[in-house]
Amino acid sequence: MPEQPSNTCIRFIKPVTAAVGKEHFALSVEPMPRAVPGHIVVRNVYLSLDPSQRRQMMPGVVYAEPLHVGDVMIGRTMGRVIESCRPDFQVGDWVRGKLGWQDYALSDGAMLERIELGGFSPSAYLGVLGNPGITAWVGLNKVATAHAGETVVVSAAAGAVGSVVAALARDKGCRVVGIAGGASKCAHAVEHIGYDACVDYRDMSFRSKLELATPQGVDVDFENVGGWVFDCVLERLNKYARVALCGLVSQYNLAEPDGLRNISAILNNNASIQGFRLANYASHRPAAVADLKRLLTAGAVRQDETIIDGLEQAPQAFIDLFQGANLGKMLVRIGSDE
Amino acid sequence: MPEQPSNTCIRFIKPVTAAVGKEHFALSVEPMPRAVPGHIVVRNVYLSLDPSQRRQMMPGVVYAEPLHVGDVMIGRTMGRVIESCRPDFQVGDWVRGKLGWQDYALSDGAMLERIELGGFSPSAYLGVLGNPGITAWVGLNKVATAHAGETVVVSAAAGAVGSVVAALARDKGCRVVGIAGGASKCAHAVEHIGYDACVDYRDMSFRSKLELATPQGVDVDFENVGGWVFDCVLERLNKYARVALCGLVSQYNLAEPDGLRNISAILNNNASIQGFRLANYASHRPAAVADLKRLLTAGAVRQDETIIDGLEQAPQAFIDLFQGANLGKMLVRIGSDE
Repeated sequence: MPEQPSNTCIRFIKPVTAAVGKEHFALSVEPMPRAVPGHIVVRNVYLSLDPSQRRQMMPGVVYAEPLHVGDVMIGRTMGRVIESCRPDFQVGDWVRGKLGWQDYALSDGAMLERIELGGFSPSAYLGVLGNPGITAWVGLNKVATAHAGETVVVSAAAGAVGSVVAALARDKGCRVVGIAGGASKCAHAVEHIGYDACVDYRDMSFRSKLELATPQGVDVDFENVGGWVFDCVLERLNKYARVALCGLVSQYNLAEPDGLRNISAILNNNASIQGFRLANYASHRPAAVADLKRLLTAGAVRQDETIIDGLEQAPQAFIDLFQGANLGKMLVRIGSDE
Repeated sequence: MPEQPSNTCIRFIKPVTAAVGKEHFALSVEPMPRAVPGHIVVRNVYLSLDPSQRRQMMPGVVYAEPLHVGDVMIGRTMGRVIESCRPDFQVGDWVRGKLGWQDYALSDGAMLERIELGGFSPSAYLGVLGNPGITAWVGLNKVATAHAGETVVVSAAAGAVGSVVAALARDKGCRVVGIAGGASKCAHAVEHIGYDACVDYRDMSFRSKLELATPQGVDVDFENVGGWVFDCVLERLNKYARVALCGLVSQYNLAEPDGLRNISAILNNNASIQGFRLANYASHRPAAVADLKRLLTAGAVRQDETIIDGLEQAPQAFIDLFQGANLGKMLVRIGSDE
């Protein structure tokens, strides 16, 4: 009798109250699930890592689907159907869903999307053509409503969302100024992503360099970071500026958040801060994906990815996200995408 | 030859960098101006004091008409024409304009409004029927767009703007919760202004009392105060909550602003903060005034005023504004309104 293949999983074992560390995760090797009637088995190939997943790891989760101690870590994946007891899924189909940090998943097909690759790589469907890209599109077009000629600042400039914001804003005719950590990321942002300028927040003269990079002030801030970097951007706001508040990655690992000092810039400039979550803009997904496919085909948006091999590396890769270790979308390759 | 009547003025003599004090003002007695061709002379009767006037006293004013050392303090007044060399103004007319902290003013009529009292008191035109009332109307209706059944929180609840916000929100069918300093102000807010509840920020258990007073959370925050009080309101925000950011009076006298810690509530709730200034909503003034006159006539909005007699008291009255000394609109009576 052949040995049953095993399913390696990463389980969540301890709630997070400050910085995420390896102690919050445990690797376990379990039997591979088999398809039962009405179900399919998926081989996960790419796992998406995103700082916002940390929210589900906190005690007393209010804003997201809660994760309980002992659960397999929640995470979005692209994978392939390897067994099917459902007429709507065929073996070999690519599917996207929240199938978690594990090699294999059993699914009844609910909340799972069949994906036609259409010439794009499978990993793109977790990045430019997935939630990060769609978030960028919605934030710029529907939340901040950026216009040609305006100055758009993007923090976490070289990240999965930020790099797409930059491409979209350039395509609109905006001046696009990035904020990123480290000289090499900033150089990449200007040379490859297409920022007009990118300012290194680790540079001692960040504040004055941001001022130099935004000679006409800031009309739109696509905010991914928060904290003192956000405060410096607030100082540069123009009248009627819009902050699309997408993330606060600098704050998630802090037991106590930093205080935001320049909220008066919002008052004084008739400016606004709009928090947003992609879930509330679901109706725009098809338009966003069509636009992003057009730009990706034209080479106007890059598909930067930081791909880590091996599920057992996922906890460290996730921890590293909060130090900005990624260029573009952070992914873990779990299986072969052949 | 009869003695020329004198004009008492309060002049601005020192830029403000932290708390406003008496050292920033000087009283001077000068000759009364006389009408010259194309001009009128106005006897100021009521002087409006507003915390936002402090902004013009700061060095390097960006957001407001600058005030130079030595200038007569800028301030809005209601007064009467006592001499006219203009066909469009008659002696005895009530006029409203920025005629400053002084008994008499010479004006060419530009930026001056003739006011038909229409049965309302002259002071109402600096309060409920003036910028504070119109600011309340615009903030609630055009910025926060409050709806029946929603919970509206109003800080500086018993102030010139806040008390009108409360009346308008009640009229819409909202639950209205005030925040004010001191038990007697809170009692007044509930008993006379018509708040459903009013929470004292000087109370040690403010945070938990605010929670009790907003059992359904907060849909709209009409924010006049800022600082830690604002942070406590942010903790209570519902999904899609709107903050109409009208003022930050707790912050104006600080050399360094407090940090706002709960900006993540904006992100997590798809909420927004919209800074606004009445100047950008000028087209709504007639509708707002008509609505406010209706409510004032019906007794649905109160015309609370704190009236200080004597121009020489104006600096202290202005300083006291930042400690919340006023109930309703803070005014200085300079002349007789007979």
